[in-house]
Amino acid sequence: MKALVFHGSGKAAWEDVADPGIQDATDAIVRVDAVTICGTDLHILKGDVPEVRPGTVLGHEAVGEIVEVGSDVRTVRPGDRVLVSCITACGRCRFCREGTYGQCRDGGGWILGHLINGTQAEYVRVPHADLSTHLLPGAVDSKDAVLLADIFPTAYEIGVLNGCVRPGDTVAVVGAGPIGLAAITTARFYTPEMITAVDLAPARLDAAKHLGADAVAVAGEEAEQLVADLTQGLGADVVIEAVGVPESFEMCTRMVRPGGHVANVGVHGKPATLHLEDLWSKNVTITTGLVDTHSTPTLLCMMAAGRLPASSLVTHTFPLGAMEEAYDVFSRAADTGALKVVLGAPQHDALTVRTS
Amino acid sequence: MKALVFHGSGKAAWEDVADPGIQDATDAIVRVDAVTICGTDLHILKGDVPEVRPGTVLGHEAVGEIVEVGSDVRTVRPGDRVLVSCITACGRCRFCREGTYGQCRDGGGWILGHLINGTQAEYVRVPHADLSTHLLPGAVDSKDAVLLADIFPTAYEIGVLNGCVRPGDTVAVVGAGPIGLAAITTARFYTPEMITAVDLAPARLDAAKHLGADAVAVAGEEAEQLVADLTQGLGADVVIEAVGVPESFEMCTRMVRPGGHVANVGVHGKPATLHLEDLWSKNVTITTGLVDTHSTPTLLCMMAAGRLPASSLVTHTFPLGAMEEAYDVFSRAADTGALKVVLGAPQHDALTVRTS
Repeated sequence: MKALVFHGSGKAAWEDVADPGIQDATDAIVRVDAVTICGTDLHILKGDVPEVRPGTVLGHEAVGEIVEVGSDVRTVRPGDRVLVSCITACGRCRFCREGTYGQCRDGGGWILGHLINGTQAEYVRVPHADLSTHLLPGAVDSKDAVLLADIFPTAYEIGVLNGCVRPGDTVAVVGAGPIGLAAITTARFYTPEMITAVDLAPARLDAAKHLGADAVAVAGEEAEQLVADLTQGLGADVVIEAVGVPESFEMCTRMVRPGGHVANVGVHGKPATLHLEDLWSKNVTITTGLVDTHSTPTLLCMMAAGRLPASSLVTHTFPLGAMEEAYDVFSRAADTGALKVVLGAPQHDALTVRTS
Repeated sequence: MKALVFHGSGKAAWEDVADPGIQDATDAIVRVDAVTICGTDLHILKGDVPEVRPGTVLGHEAVGEIVEVGSDVRTVRPGDRVLVSCITACGRCRFCREGTYGQCRDGGGWILGHLINGTQAEYVRVPHADLSTHLLPGAVDSKDAVLLADIFPTAYEIGVLNGCVRPGDTVAVVGAGPIGLAAITTARFYTPEMITAVDLAPARLDAAKHLGADAVAVAGEEAEQLVADLTQGLGADVVIEAVGVPESFEMCTRMVRPGGHVANVGVHGKPATLHLEDLWSKNVTITTGLVDTHSTPTLLCMMAAGRLPASSLVTHTFPLGAMEEAYDVFSRAADTGALKVVLGAPQHDALTVRTS
């Protein structure tokens, strides 16, 4: 089969590799019909994630059809159309039993395209398939559904739920890339009074407005002043960090009100300064997290009901074989305006017709 | 009257000052019968809290008798024996209405011995007396009760409740001074599996054991290794920071398990480094806070029922007039073994007999 293989910092190629096969009785093999590229994939390509070894197939998000299952798989079978979650879950360890699948200690967590071969390929082996795939309702389009593999549950669980967004809250979302936009979309489930989006790119602020941000500001002092003005100087109830650099995190801790929440979603490569000399008495709650994907079934229902406008985030589509071109477009987002790129969906749409 | 007056960095004296009087209809005047010294008072004396102006009477914890009330005070009257809370609360602002009295925006929060004259005096004016004092049950000894003005609610609310200690949890308390010891005492309300106390001083680790710590360790690598060993390498469910220096806070963030809580109680004067490159995916919750004292009525009931062994923390007692000597003993805790010093309690005990 063809797959995107990582060859060390800065290098990856769409090339021939061996087809994956069942290795464990809980595995499934999925034929990939739609796949996307994550900001984390770009971090890997830059060499920022050293545990990804050269030779690994990248990607941790997919929609596809089950083509083979191990003898212990119970909930999916060949022919099923499934979402492949970015999180693999054994379902039996201490963390899985608490629903914190992202921290799975028995061969799960974020492993696809990280510790084992991933989804940017024609086929992918999915361990612990019972808990690591989700059957897709017929009403859900695969180009949209693939966004539920990672960015929507991540933005919802780590941003909105960890941040404890409540009706009437003032919410600031710092970073209006795909994750920040998904946070704006899902924060609206809780009917906050006001969502302010902050970014450096005017095009992303426009997208934020389109998805429901009530106010937008360019990152920096202007944004801090806007949030202060909108909250009588108090600060936002909830600030969601969706960038992943120290400056952005530190701005979030200045924007939050006494008693408020800073929910960090960004993937960080460096430490930040935590100004405890200001924050110790401010009753703030700061959370971090890798997604657990416990919300994926809920989000699938919302999508099937037409209450999750995910498709607004998909700016570019490609055939699966155009992986290298898709990476190029996605990595030059400032020039290309790319938010999410989806590969292979047309092939899947054809499949939907065939099997319906 | 006599009072301890702050005269700028390093200087304070027990000297004659004008008696306080009612300034607002919600004020009460309290004759101080028992008072204690807080680590925060030492910070003020060092000049670390610049908003405290020279001429201010220090102290934010007291037990005493109401001698006069303004016309709008409803819940206490002259002759009542009360606890004076470290937090003053208007009861009407947005924050008070949510029970976050520490953030009161209408002349409350931590003001005694900070923004207005405090309790280390023969008499003190207590603004917003209805919500800023608590009637004392007869069964409660004043030497113990004065510890409910600040350190017990602080340790309980900002350490134990913010840290979400649950039955069966593994808890690490970093810093076994009065606040850390009060955190150990109140963490036990939730029946954790194991409490580990960490400090540099062997005498404080002994006190921690006496108050119910299951394991103790000297701060540093030894302590981190002990917590790792006790938790199969995972880390503690809850880590309570009760020191207030960057090194201690950073150790707490290394001791916590994935999905765990770091509850900062320490008063910090400097920023700390937050290692988001390790923590972003670890699902940790970090909280800070100034006490709200919403738990004071509960803690008073626990004390009256004999379920709060506060007296173990009182190592030294003095007459009220020995304020300067008490500061000397408290500030040289490493030499004197002082945990909490209480002044004036014998005078109060005599009062109890008289009024019972």
